[in-house]
Amino acid sequence: MNFEDLIIDVYREVENLEGKGETASYIPELSKVDPSKFGVHISTINGGSFGAGDFEEKFSIQSISKVLSLILAYRILDFEIWNRVGVEPSGTAFNSLFQLEADQGIPRNPFLNAGALVVTDILLSNLENPQDDFINFVRSISNNDSVDYSKKIAQSEKDVGYRNIALCNYIKSFGKIENEPADVLDFYYDICSLEMSCRDLSELFLFLANDGIDPKSNREVLNERQSKRVNALMQTCGFYDESGEFAFKVGLPGKSGVGGGIIAVHPDQYSIAVWSPKLNKKGNSYKGMRFLEEFTTGSELSLF
Amino acid sequence: MNFEDLIIDVYREVENLEGKGETASYIPELSKVDPSKFGVHISTINGGSFGAGDFEEKFSIQSISKVLSLILAYRILDFEIWNRVGVEPSGTAFNSLFQLEADQGIPRNPFLNAGALVVTDILLSNLENPQDDFINFVRSISNNDSVDYSKKIAQSEKDVGYRNIALCNYIKSFGKIENEPADVLDFYYDICSLEMSCRDLSELFLFLANDGIDPKSNREVLNERQSKRVNALMQTCGFYDESGEFAFKVGLPGKSGVGGGIIAVHPDQYSIAVWSPKLNKKGNSYKGMRFLEEFTTGSELSLF
Amino acid sequence: MNFEDLIIDVYREVENLEGKGETASYIPELSKVDPSKFGVHISTINGGSFGAGDFEEKFSIQSISKVLSLILAYRILDFEIWNRVGVEPSGTAFNSLFQLEADQGIPRNPFLNAGALVVTDILLSNLENPQDDFINFVRSISNNDSVDYSKKIAQSEKDVGYRNIALCNYIKSFGKIENEPADVLDFYYDICSLEMSCRDLSELFLFLANDGIDPKSNREVLNERQSKRVNALMQTCGFYDESGEFAFKVGLPGKSGVGGGIIAVHPDQYSIAVWSPKLNKKGNSYKGMRFLEEFTTGSELSLF
Amino acid sequence: MNFEDLIIDVYREVENLEGKGETASYIPELSKVDPSKFGVHISTINGGSFGAGDFEEKFSIQSISKVLSLILAYRILDFEIWNRVGVEPSGTAFNSLFQLEADQGIPRNPFLNAGALVVTDILLSNLENPQDDFINFVRSISNNDSVDYSKKIAQSEKDVGYRNIALCNYIKSFGKIENEPADVLDFYYDICSLEMSCRDLSELFLFLANDGIDPKSNREVLNERQSKRVNALMQTCGFYDESGEFAFKVGLPGKSGVGGGIIAVHPDQYSIAVWSPKLNKKGNSYKGMRFLEEFTTGSELSLF
Repeated sequence: MNFEDLIIDVYREVENLEGKGETASYIPELSKVDPSKFGVHISTINGGSFGAGDFEEKFSIQSISKVLSLILAYRILDFEIWNRVGVEPSGTAFNSLFQLEADQGIPRNPFLNAGALVVTDILLSNLENPQDDFINFVRSISNNDSVDYSKKIAQSEKDVGYRNIALCNYIKSFGKIENEPADVLDFYYDICSLEMSCRDLSELFLFLANDGIDPKSNREVLNERQSKRVNALMQTCGFYDESGEFAFKVGLPGKSGVGGGIIAVHPDQYSIAVWSPKLNKKGNSYKGMRFLEEFTTGSELSLF
Repeated sequence: MNFEDLIIDVYREVENLEGKGETASYIPELSKVDPSKFGVHISTINGGSFGAGDFEEKFSIQSISKVLSLILAYRILDFEIWNRVGVEPSGTAFNSLFQLEADQGIPRNPFLNAGALVVTDILLSNLENPQDDFINFVRSISNNDSVDYSKKIAQSEKDVGYRNIALCNYIKSFGKIENEPADVLDFYYDICSLEMSCRDLSELFLFLANDGIDPKSNREVLNERQSKRVNALMQTCGFYDESGEFAFKVGLPGKSGVGGGIIAVHPDQYSIAVWSPKLNKKGNSYKGMRFLEEFTTGSELSLF
Repeated sequence: MNFEDLIIDVYREVENLEGKGETASYIPELSKVDPSKFGVHISTINGGSFGAGDFEEKFSIQSISKVLSLILAYRILDFEIWNRVGVEPSGTAFNSLFQLEADQGIPRNPFLNAGALVVTDILLSNLENPQDDFINFVRSISNNDSVDYSKKIAQSEKDVGYRNIALCNYIKSFGKIENEPADVLDFYYDICSLEMSCRDLSELFLFLANDGIDPKSNREVLNERQSKRVNALMQTCGFYDESGEFAFKVGLPGKSGVGGGIIAVHPDQYSIAVWSPKLNKKGNSYKGMRFLEEFTTGSELSLF
Repeated sequence: MNFEDLIIDVYREVENLEGKGETASYIPELSKVDPSKFGVHISTINGGSFGAGDFEEKFSIQSISKVLSLILAYRILDFEIWNRVGVEPSGTAFNSLFQLEADQGIPRNPFLNAGALVVTDILLSNLENPQDDFINFVRSISNNDSVDYSKKIAQSEKDVGYRNIALCNYIKSFGKIENEPADVLDFYYDICSLEMSCRDLSELFLFLANDGIDPKSNREVLNERQSKRVNALMQTCGFYDESGEFAFKVGLPGKSGVGGGIIAVHPDQYSIAVWSPKLNKKGNSYKGMRFLEEFTTGSELSLF
């Protein structure tokens, strides 16, 4: 199999699809992004690397960063993190408050906004200089010092973040957030505002295809057990209430963001990042989903 | 790796675990089963086959049969089946009516009781002699004419099946069941009452590890795409509201039944069946879950 | 104040309203009723009696009968009835299964279908010849031997009653129904099928305006405390999720049925029945609600 | 009937009840109140006035103030207020977020915290100097310049008000709050912090027993229609998910607060206020509920 030819073929096919979907409008800064952008980049554990389209342009990774904050918190607390947040798919939208009432403030999984707020709270309690320590961690595992927060995006999201304020204070009312909600939210928006390119993303997440070891530096980001579990979580919970659909059509662990990015991991093979800003009704990149569906079909590689 | 030694080791380790959990008490006949039974059987796509403990004793496969009815309905309707039932994890218990109200009678996935009732309704509408045709299908794909319904178990479940009557009539009230609920339920209880051994199960489900082709007979049970999608569904929805936990700890597509059986599939490798009647609080076999967790850890084979 | 003139005035005004709403279509027999029917009848505790329009024509009283079954069960169990069914408004539609899951099979109040099924179950357990005993009770308190079940309506409702089968079996699955659901439902449909005229209804319910004593016969139907509590329940729960609206606009205890009938009671003054088959979106008679709103405004008599 | 003797009798009877319940602990300042306090005061539309126990001691009226803010907003917007908040009982606890999700940010009624926040938002948008204008309004209708906010109580509630922050921001996220949530909450806490005695309360609320006219000053606080509707709302929604119980046992429109106060109104007769800080599980004054139950039974006056 030749990944490069396949990527080019599928890229061309999907590029010409009538551009269904809308860019995220609820964060004003995000709605300014050129909706025609479309990039893809693959990194294989054998050192292969290939991109197409706007794969070197940085974009707002948004919820993809929830995997990064989870990884750092998981390194700190190991299995004790699961006392604070569950591992089950929720069957509800990303910002629902519904299940929190039934579950007394324990979010179903770390990829819901509610769960990511709890993970952010953990980082805030355990890092000496949270903002600095987190960005340094991301730079270190991505071997890439250019990764940074976008204060503009963070501020734009903060300005309209009433639902997140509600979520965070709601969890706090159950005693399940340790820090002040305003501090948790500030850090949360910073984390969501990270800007990376498809190349940055596929390189950063390659360790999840390699049992936790970054194949370039040979450093252990997570141990094997932890790495497998992060993949399992991305498989069952990575796409909100479209997680089943993604497992069904693409069959890989992955995570999407409302900036239009998707990262997916094929264990023992590769990691792949796609970016196209127009979203489907569930908040996942329309072309990104289609690209990955066609790509995994074409590659005849699948977990299942 | 040597599957046989590993199975023996893990079997011995788990066998001696203090027997937590309870046998299913809501179906009177099931509560009569000897709770100390414990069997396991693996079949590999290379023709390997190995069992330990009570692996040749037939037991009530219960909800594992939901995969069988799905497969037959999927063969009949192909992708149009997804107009009748979803592919998303539900985040709720197996017999919840909750989400049906929000979703206007479309069950979230075919492994919830609600979803399996819709699948049963499809079979009832499409098979000439439903009870006969279904058992013949199961016998044919399992190369095993001894598989049969247990009328005793079916009757025992029917006698106390108020929740299922509620579910089926509720869906009917949304116009999403075509046949009379009483007929759907009768057939549903027959399907749930199938009795098979661990060996029967692992042999039957091996085609899901082989892209839909039964390696013994070389017959196509499902096409490759369908086979992958059934695996994806088992991965995200196979264990009710413990599906995330199973993906997390075991990492394989699988399906459990309240009779204490679990089937799991490792694509391109093997299928494995475990049976131990005592259930955890979520309704899944306590020792079965533990066995598979230890086995996949020990085998160092994992999807993730 | 002169009730007769006021009734005539308001009747004429409402009669000419453009006939918004639809007759109940989910019970086929009910949809055959002439939608232009419109009747009203008042009975006062001083012996006054006056009707307008189709006030002597019998119609299907449907859920108004829930008050009758409650009254009979209340006479039998007195306050112990509240162990089986609550007294709180539900905030949900009349046939919702939602709250039953949270409340483990205890319906919020006896005027929801769920609650009426529990009340029917109580009658079934406590009456020697339920169907006969109930109709005799109704005839006796209404001084009217012509009141009867409509087997045609009962059958028509039964034929499409999937939601009610679901409700009854769901409650049974929590162990909160004593008899077989099919028997409870048969009796329930009989009770709902009672046919009475506006005159019959206003005469029957007059005892609730008179502290439980039928002013004609001087017999005690309920004791004073019980009578007040039935009124309180009709006030807070008599109109499903439009109960607040009815209290707000009409301000009297009352009960509606999908046949288009409404009974309302002004304690110490009168009882009044209205009938017009076209229903608003909440399932209450469109013209009936309007008539009572205008009538209570015009009469300058109000509880509040 | 002699109200004075009855009040003394019932007061003595209830005073000696074993003091079940707990003072509100979630607002630290409230938990400091002497739990043995017990006062009651009645005002009749004929000019009668009588108190027992601690009826002249001011206490935190808390949610009783929700009626006051509703009244002022109702005067400003008249019926258009019902575009912003419903009139239906909710069947849920006072601070639930549950129904807001289904109802897209429109609270079910103005006596839920959610509804009161929307009413506060209306006042904030329509008053020139909200804090001053509101207190002046309350002083004016109570003929009592000593009524004031307690900044200590307001601050104490604000310090722990995570659930209210969640509610207000959640409603804002649906676009149903016009002002900044922080401003709405500050004003809301001020309003809740009003301190009044039983005498103050019964005198203030007497206009609701008199079709909107304060009998002392002869001023119209609300017009007759508005006054009746506020009473109807208190009847169906005044006691959270114990509203049905209160209508059932007491039978009067009323409103409770977690400070242990209750106001109840008997149209055309009297208004009565009770105060005892220990609350039942639903958050209503234990002795206050009992007092009113015994009092309305003893007085043989009831709406029903």
